[in-house]
Amino acid sequence: MKNQKISNNVIRRLPRYIRHLDILADAGVIRISSSELGDQMNLTASQIRQDFNCFGGFGQQGYGYNVEELRGQLASILGMSESRTAIIIGAGNLGRAIIKHFKFGACGVTLKAAFDIDNERSISGPPFLPVYDMGELETYLEENETDIAVLTLPSNTANEIAVRLVKAGIKGIWNFTNVELRNIPKDIVVENVHFSDSLLTLNYYLSQKEK
Amino acid sequence: MKNQKISNNVIRRLPRYIRHLDILADAGVIRISSSELGDQMNLTASQIRQDFNCFGGFGQQGYGYNVEELRGQLASILGMSESRTAIIIGAGNLGRAIIKHFKFGACGVTLKAAFDIDNERSISGPPFLPVYDMGELETYLEENETDIAVLTLPSNTANEIAVRLVKAGIKGIWNFTNVELRNIPKDIVVENVHFSDSLLTLNYYLSQKEK
Repeated sequence: MKNQKISNNVIRRLPRYIRHLDILADAGVIRISSSELGDQMNLTASQIRQDFNCFGGFGQQGYGYNVEELRGQLASILGMSESRTAIIIGAGNLGRAIIKHFKFGACGVTLKAAFDIDNERSISGPPFLPVYDMGELETYLEENETDIAVLTLPSNTANEIAVRLVKAGIKGIWNFTNVELRNIPKDIVVENVHFSDSLLTLNYYLSQKEK
Repeated sequence: MKNQKISNNVIRRLPRYIRHLDILADAGVIRISSSELGDQMNLTASQIRQDFNCFGGFGQQGYGYNVEELRGQLASILGMSESRTAIIIGAGNLGRAIIKHFKFGACGVTLKAAFDIDNERSISGPPFLPVYDMGELETYLEENETDIAVLTLPSNTANEIAVRLVKAGIKGIWNFTNVELRNIPKDIVVENVHFSDSLLTLNYYLSQKEK
């Protein structure tokens, strides 16, 4: 697969394709052309073909895409069938919302434990997740190989904790705090969910509509 | 300002510029060149100039950008000083996390009320936010002009409620459910926060690092 230097935008569109293919599969659709798919997803057929060509292309000329096959290929590119492990730092409202409702499994990730400064904060399952005190972080990570840390803790401690996590072997940080993390080595993958960026984008388009 | 047809990617970068300019302003930086800004933000100087040229350009040849001025111009483009109103639908864990910790004010939005099927769910402030029963939605919106609805309700009712909101006059939907909303008129702005897209992107880059 020639998947070097694929643009971030293409990568970020892949989950959207998968979500749409799931809807199609549920509706019993077996195959679809790039132009039909484009119509449904507000993309051009040529953009879809270009996106998939980044990975070597999937369709067959004149046949289109087999929905299930395409879904499988995209899922494999995104590592959805890998078995990664994660911990979550911060078991307040946002942490609990994610623990209770976010389907980690569907993304190939198993959430193993939560950490909080207040370890009296138990999680009433399901899922039944142990909540450890922040002081136990390093010992836990030494004993349990973990790929990803989800940051749902207050912003003011985010960077300090992120540095501790990386030192303890974490490879990927899923950052929900509104902080740009600093002093994180370049080989660590940081993915930010900045709510404010999203609301400001909504604002912008609302203003444009009113013009 | 020639701000027609500016690509979504440019718009989505603007909040990131603002966050970075805030850090610079806090550090007492008065002006900055596009190449310095680029180095700090992992962008090329030419990309930065291109981005700003979409709005007519802000810098002065040989001087660079005045940090505060640039921040103000970007903020105005994003409507951060407008006074929009919002309601939030769903006062569960995610809803509460957003009500308690998300700084709507910094985005030019005032959160006015929450709605839930269980209106016994009061919000222990601050902020002190009234929680209404879903049955009161239409009456509320008739009496209180509202721009934006934040969807933090269970996925299975998201679409039905979104349609009700639009019918009652909502112009923008900030959708935190993992559902692609359907049957929403084209003049309504929908901004999705799909957590799974973000985690899958993180997964992808983790896999790439391991190759």
